[in-house]
Amino acid sequence: MAERTQMPFWGWGDPAHPRELPELAVAQLRETVGLAARARPPVALDAVRLPESRLPDAARSALAGVAGDAHLRVDRAARVLHAAGKSYPDLVRLRAGEPAHVADAVVWPGGADEVAAVLAACAEAGVAVVPFGGGTSVVGGVEPLAGDHAAVIALDLARLRALHALDEVDETAVLGPGLRGPEAEALLAARGYTLGHFPQSYEFATIGGYVATRSAGQASTGYGRIDENVLGVRFAAPTGEIDLPPRPASAAGPDLRELIVGSEGTLGVITAAALQIAPRPERARYEGWFFRSFAEGAQALRRLEQADAAPTVARLSDEAETRLSMLLAGAGGATAKAGRAYLRARRALDGCLAIAGWEGTEREVARRRARGAFALRRAGGVALGAAPGRAWERGRYAGPYLRDALLDHGVMVETLETATTWSNLEALHVAVGDALRDALTVRGTPPLVMCHVSHLYRSGASLYFTWLARQQEGAEIAQWRAAKTAACDAIMAGGGTITHHHAVGTDHAPWMPREIGPLGVEALRAVKERLDPSGIMNPGKLLPET
Amino acid sequence: MAERTQMPFWGWGDPAHPRELPELAVAQLRETVGLAARARPPVALDAVRLPESRLPDAARSALAGVAGDAHLRVDRAARVLHAAGKSYPDLVRLRAGEPAHVADAVVWPGGADEVAAVLAACAEAGVAVVPFGGGTSVVGGVEPLAGDHAAVIALDLARLRALHALDEVDETAVLGPGLRGPEAEALLAARGYTLGHFPQSYEFATIGGYVATRSAGQASTGYGRIDENVLGVRFAAPTGEIDLPPRPASAAGPDLRELIVGSEGTLGVITAAALQIAPRPERARYEGWFFRSFAEGAQALRRLEQADAAPTVARLSDEAETRLSMLLAGAGGATAKAGRAYLRARRALDGCLAIAGWEGTEREVARRRARGAFALRRAGGVALGAAPGRAWERGRYAGPYLRDALLDHGVMVETLETATTWSNLEALHVAVGDALRDALTVRGTPPLVMCHVSHLYRSGASLYFTWLARQQEGAEIAQWRAAKTAACDAIMAGGGTITHHHAVGTDHAPWMPREIGPLGVEALRAVKERLDPSGIMNPGKLLPET
Repeated sequence: MAERTQMPFWGWGDPAHPRELPELAVAQLRETVGLAARARPPVALDAVRLPESRLPDAARSALAGVAGDAHLRVDRAARVLHAAGKSYPDLVRLRAGEPAHVADAVVWPGGADEVAAVLAACAEAGVAVVPFGGGTSVVGGVEPLAGDHAAVIALDLARLRALHALDEVDETAVLGPGLRGPEAEALLAARGYTLGHFPQSYEFATIGGYVATRSAGQASTGYGRIDENVLGVRFAAPTGEIDLPPRPASAAGPDLRELIVGSEGTLGVITAAALQIAPRPERARYEGWFFRSFAEGAQALRRLEQADAAPTVARLSDEAETRLSMLLAGAGGATAKAGRAYLRARRALDGCLAIAGWEGTEREVARRRARGAFALRRAGGVALGAAPGRAWERGRYAGPYLRDALLDHGVMVETLETATTWSNLEALHVAVGDALRDALTVRGTPPLVMCHVSHLYRSGASLYFTWLARQQEGAEIAQWRAAKTAACDAIMAGGGTITHHHAVGTDHAPWMPREIGPLGVEALRAVKERLDPSGIMNPGKLLPET
Repeated sequence: MAERTQMPFWGWGDPAHPRELPELAVAQLRETVGLAARARPPVALDAVRLPESRLPDAARSALAGVAGDAHLRVDRAARVLHAAGKSYPDLVRLRAGEPAHVADAVVWPGGADEVAAVLAACAEAGVAVVPFGGGTSVVGGVEPLAGDHAAVIALDLARLRALHALDEVDETAVLGPGLRGPEAEALLAARGYTLGHFPQSYEFATIGGYVATRSAGQASTGYGRIDENVLGVRFAAPTGEIDLPPRPASAAGPDLRELIVGSEGTLGVITAAALQIAPRPERARYEGWFFRSFAEGAQALRRLEQADAAPTVARLSDEAETRLSMLLAGAGGATAKAGRAYLRARRALDGCLAIAGWEGTEREVARRRARGAFALRRAGGVALGAAPGRAWERGRYAGPYLRDALLDHGVMVETLETATTWSNLEALHVAVGDALRDALTVRGTPPLVMCHVSHLYRSGASLYFTWLARQQEGAEIAQWRAAKTAACDAIMAGGGTITHHHAVGTDHAPWMPREIGPLGVEALRAVKERLDPSGIMNPGKLLPET
């Protein structure tokens, strides 16, 4: 297999990428949430506590027989790199050299048939299987839990990276699950197409991961969520295969695709996905807009969406997030300063920044942008021009690198997200913010809580929260759990969904009975028991333990 | 409950509605497919063979206790009206007074709690339950099969007709399942909204039926299929309730809504649905377009859809359907004649008629129509003006009345539908047409087969076939089954879905293992066994018998 950039076990992204905070931001954070007395760097790989591999010899032989010796590894580097995803607790634990769990081995099957054979071998041997795409889960989705089994392997899909088919008439492509976002885009771009799916994790997340977690990207207001773009799927479960060919629509009973999409590896492994693609845009125009309040901005976006005039990218920061992005951008130069000066002149510094982005042909962008801008202006928006759009574009995948930098300084940074109806948006925004502030203030670490809307639907929108707080050294996980629990309880009590695009994993599983009801949980368990009777598939994820 | 128009047991719609064929059509049919030697009218209600009700006394008392004596009926009229849906074989049997099965009783629960109590009583008594909305199924979806049980009741949802909520900010409404299309539209119209869902069965089909069968309407290219508009659902199964509140989007695992939508009463009963609504259009403009061939027209519609420029209503008849609609319209007067003259002048009479309809505000219609018309013209379309659009609008719900008239003349008329990708559309169009022609010609009843595209998706479209043939008297069902089987086999072999919007019922159940694979069937069975362990819910529908 081709060599690809591997993320460091303790953090995000390309190891060579700089991860430093602007001086101004460090000073500001020292004043507001507080920093650690001294830097808190991650441990070296050799210092990570690594239990013996528990993989039984028979299973090891069987797996090597399926995938080949070169594609079964039990060494430290492979096992630690598959010990966790990239959630805040994952990083806290790995930076300290104390992973919660470690895979007993990593297997790289070479195709759909080998995936099926790996599942058969593991079912036979009683070994749990964690499907592993980009390893970017922020909700514990790839935590190597063995459940009731003697051992657990990570099943890495990195070798399933084919573009199996591309149909220019139907604008569809069949893609391998192991393709990372940029790899898939490069294959499609060579033929003039795009998937249009750009989550913040885009540089490392995979097609299989998108589908398994019901992902949404930054441009999903325009291109649609991944679930809206899955036309067919090939799927290997321990009891057999399900192959749903691409179909534009069907009334043939419950939609099985929607049972596989979002199944998070708990039922089986996605071995190929037939996805809607779109012509690669000739032009992308991202620009900034300013609103006097979050409520005003949300109403403007709602009207745009309901008039079928929404841009491809639509994002609205609340007042707190607007202030912080101004601060971070402020380190960067003249354009942000010009924006601030303009807003000050309009006596409206304490408002909200929105990003609106249009993609398509030159003509489409011109036409749709004219219509959108007219509506935004009529709804109270002030155009800030292209500079804030360019700043957003430059930083669109940078968040996780900043997190590493903040962790070096002893600052907790975490995100969570939900969606609700427009009529409930502001109440939920307030309730979740309050829950986070209360839970962390009571522990002596008052947070900075920010939020944005980033996905529009006719009936509602997503809310994406980010918070910063000083880490409680030695009690980082308890501190995180207190904040997370308070926020999730507030989301459920406030009528939101427990997750809009991060998925369930281990972290949200306790809330699933409230999300879909006890009988809904039973229905999913019934499917699980039929497709995976020995319970080897990704134990402990999606549904709470019985 | 308020009195509503009841359909005749032997046919469609308002009994007072005329159902006669134009003289010209009768003459044409006599020449082409042939007519019966003498008229074949339906029998009177009293002549319908009616078995004794098998409902056990204990169950009868329990059900009367739940719904009240007035809402449990075992009389002839109630039982025969719930003996079948409105498929061709249903009508053949009922017109002859020989229903295949008859419900042992009909129960009208008064609300969601009573529905749950009816299910509990039936589970206790071992009585099968067939949820019954409009009774318009054309695939055997409401056939009162008892399965392994001693008796079967029809659970008529006519009393669940509330508009529970309407949110003008979110553009959502929560509707009772028993509301017929026009009833729901009237409630929404009073507040300025529409559901935008207009299947041919609109006048009698219900909200619950739409959702349970994954319905699509004539304007679904614009407003979306019902599955795209279900935001939440309240659902009673024999083992309990699932209540999914309206959520714009979620990544919380598999989408349970998509398991309930399309479940066709086999898992439980939809007791309320939260649906996306839209502002009632100020303006609707339907017009005719002409293409030299079906392939040319399909390509034009594909380009429109993929450029996000599709009209609200888009329909393209093939050459055979175009000829027949010209003929039927020809009975009607000058406008159609003018159209024919125009087309003849362009030497293109043997082409295809398309209907394009735009709905919205005056401005939206003007803007979208200008864009659509430009694209249609560029793709080879010739504008025929509003007259063909008006003719389509007048006849949009008339098809089932014509069927009754054709049956009087001994003419079989049946429809079936599928969907496939654009690149496969023409091959499937030919294959299904050939299969129908072969299967019926070999029986000595060569058919007239017509087809249209009526729902556009970015990756493909629906194909809706209608065929006419002389009935084989005394072997009507065998004749139908031969044609239906040939067409369904051709659909599956040709890469279509077994149904685009008619649903599965009994008629398509044998093809479900090919549609979703044996393991897909097992997954659905597992859910069924968990939600309905005694198997009382709508036996024999959706999945083949084991």
